[in-house]
Amino acid sequence: MRIEVVNTGTELLLGTVINTHAGYFGQELFKLGLRIQRQVTIPDGDDIRRALEYAIPRADVILVTGGLGPTSDDITREVVADMLGRDLVLDEAIRDIIHGMFQGWGRKPDSSNDRQAMVPVGATVLENPNGTAPGLYFPADPENNSPHIFLMPGPPRELKPMFQDQVFPQLASLLEGSGSIDTWSNFRIYGIGESSIAGKLDPIFESNHAVEIGYCARLGEVDVRLIGQADAIKAAEDVVREVFPHEIVAESEESIEEVVVDLLDKRGQTMATAESCTGGEIVSTITNVPGSSNVLNRGYVTYANEAKVDMLGVAASLIEAHGAVSGPVASAMAEGCLRESGADHAIAVTGIAGPGGGSDEKPVGTVYVALASQHSETYVKGYFKPTDRISFKLRVTRLALDLLRRRLLGFPLD
Amino acid sequence: MRIEVVNTGTELLLGTVINTHAGYFGQELFKLGLRIQRQVTIPDGDDIRRALEYAIPRADVILVTGGLGPTSDDITREVVADMLGRDLVLDEAIRDIIHGMFQGWGRKPDSSNDRQAMVPVGATVLENPNGTAPGLYFPADPENNSPHIFLMPGPPRELKPMFQDQVFPQLASLLEGSGSIDTWSNFRIYGIGESSIAGKLDPIFESNHAVEIGYCARLGEVDVRLIGQADAIKAAEDVVREVFPHEIVAESEESIEEVVVDLLDKRGQTMATAESCTGGEIVSTITNVPGSSNVLNRGYVTYANEAKVDMLGVAASLIEAHGAVSGPVASAMAEGCLRESGADHAIAVTGIAGPGGGSDEKPVGTVYVALASQHSETYVKGYFKPTDRISFKLRVTRLALDLLRRRLLGFPLD
Repeated sequence: MRIEVVNTGTELLLGTVINTHAGYFGQELFKLGLRIQRQVTIPDGDDIRRALEYAIPRADVILVTGGLGPTSDDITREVVADMLGRDLVLDEAIRDIIHGMFQGWGRKPDSSNDRQAMVPVGATVLENPNGTAPGLYFPADPENNSPHIFLMPGPPRELKPMFQDQVFPQLASLLEGSGSIDTWSNFRIYGIGESSIAGKLDPIFESNHAVEIGYCARLGEVDVRLIGQADAIKAAEDVVREVFPHEIVAESEESIEEVVVDLLDKRGQTMATAESCTGGEIVSTITNVPGSSNVLNRGYVTYANEAKVDMLGVAASLIEAHGAVSGPVASAMAEGCLRESGADHAIAVTGIAGPGGGSDEKPVGTVYVALASQHSETYVKGYFKPTDRISFKLRVTRLALDLLRRRLLGFPLD
Repeated sequence: MRIEVVNTGTELLLGTVINTHAGYFGQELFKLGLRIQRQVTIPDGDDIRRALEYAIPRADVILVTGGLGPTSDDITREVVADMLGRDLVLDEAIRDIIHGMFQGWGRKPDSSNDRQAMVPVGATVLENPNGTAPGLYFPADPENNSPHIFLMPGPPRELKPMFQDQVFPQLASLLEGSGSIDTWSNFRIYGIGESSIAGKLDPIFESNHAVEIGYCARLGEVDVRLIGQADAIKAAEDVVREVFPHEIVAESEESIEEVVVDLLDKRGQTMATAESCTGGEIVSTITNVPGSSNVLNRGYVTYANEAKVDMLGVAASLIEAHGAVSGPVASAMAEGCLRESGADHAIAVTGIAGPGGGSDEKPVGTVYVALASQHSETYVKGYFKPTDRISFKLRVTRLALDLLRRRLLGFPLD
């Protein structure tokens, strides 16, 4: 079933409003094993006609958002009715509902609002409890080669309930008995790059046409997505698990911070952080997770050398001897953090985020990550991840949290 | 100048990544008085050909994102070269740069990475300092009816610098002499909502057709954008300054953290942070600014009560008497932070981010922000900002930094 999305709205193209509709539809349709094949954004006004002329012959389902409002550039309803050769008839029940809404607001509707009560012959009204613009569903008409067309309002608070309660069930019923529902799974992988992952998996799946494999890389994490029939996916999942026994952070779209908080929580353990170059990014990331207060009671941001000495008891002589950005200082920070906080695990990082502060010996991107735990030896490792300052902080945060994940699971840290 | 945007990326249609490119381009192009006429999202793979076949005859400029990576479904470069009848030639300089990047990461490139160094004849390379995929610019070729085509990588951290430094200036130079460029200015306003701002400015500018005014609200900050001819804008700017004497954070798109770091730096002063509900977001936001190490030497994340006592010397009896989320505890945190850090200013926050932890008396969204400074009285204020956890952290961070900005400028804090 080929699905296309048409979003109308000048504000979406001006960038004052980010278009979240396509992402929302994509996530919802995935649950039915459906995907969007194409999404287009056009301004309010005439362009809707051209966009539909292009989509109608190619799609089985078209989801249209926007252009159902009362202003003069809201013409989706009229254009679609005209293209499909349907007359518009005033639906008195809908007019009464709209008038009732205006009464509730203490305002008077005008004739532009009555336009919203016009319903094309053969179309089904989709109720809108959150606004004046009802949606419309035009079932497919094979004689006229027209696909299923859904018209929905643009504002997310009106669109989402309408989609969920009325459009989604309709799509599910169209699928029934077609037996074409694919399933999918997602692996979130850390510690290995996209091209290395593809280098291992592509040769395995090259000749397997029952499974489609896709990659999406983001600063230190890669999503591997498998799509296909259920049994083929099941077999493919086993292959991915075997190839990456320690690198799979989640078999879902869970974040590393959710995984770490969950692992700690299940073990009744706690963590603390001592950060230099990440400047609080690690602790802020962990505290994004609801319930993280169960597993984290404090964090230290020791940006200056004196803060490392004062707050974590790092010996000034150690900083003198090795420099603040060094393995020994990272280890001492982690151990000081463990001691001061009484947590079960302490993560420490020290490095050079840039753009300034680098040297030949220790260029921008140099970073040491240490992990100290009760009853375990402190682990420290140096990395070199040159990038912009903010990406560096995020990347190092993920590196550090993945070290803790590996320790909690008893996996090798290297 | 008709501009179309083509975004490739299966993940954008699956909804796992929200497409922010179109919005970003829209905002940037606005500065040149340009707008996007159409935006389309397609999956990785073959569909790029159909999308360009449709766009090429209609557009003057096509901005393409994605599909420049090393994996088998990244074929934008090859498809465009083929459609325009250009051979691909290995650019050894780019190959060397890519190999150098891999060397820096301690990894070996493979042949898939060499594909990224293939450059179509007649195309200009757009350098990518943040990734292996260079961009490409195909100038318009009127003989072949092909418009200006820009190919850019998909990841925003690679895309944005490339657009800003290389594509935007190129588009500006294409416009030169056309005389159609309006000027614009932007005011970033804190502490007052979008509709209140519009309520003050719209009546003033209603009858002024020389100035177009636009608003963009984001979690505690509102951008007011003026567009028009230079002299009209100049007069309008004075009006905005007069209406909001203390609320304008920047006459640009500078962030509150950049403003605060700059104000501190100019005064040779320092700050420190003591955070509970924001969990490190404030200190992480400040340390996003290059050079922030001049003005911040440390931060405390005191999530648990015992951490507030241990790290900041807050009296346990004070927490007992008023609760951890209270004005007196916020003040004590700020004063403890000032004392322990020796900084000139200390910001402290304590609140309930949710979704759990609220009560009838102190519901989710309750927060107290305190500011302690050397030689000034400690200021504390309670707010109620119920929203999701992550938005709450960001919003409170902005509130807190704006308090410090006002104190540094000698503005009223209320």
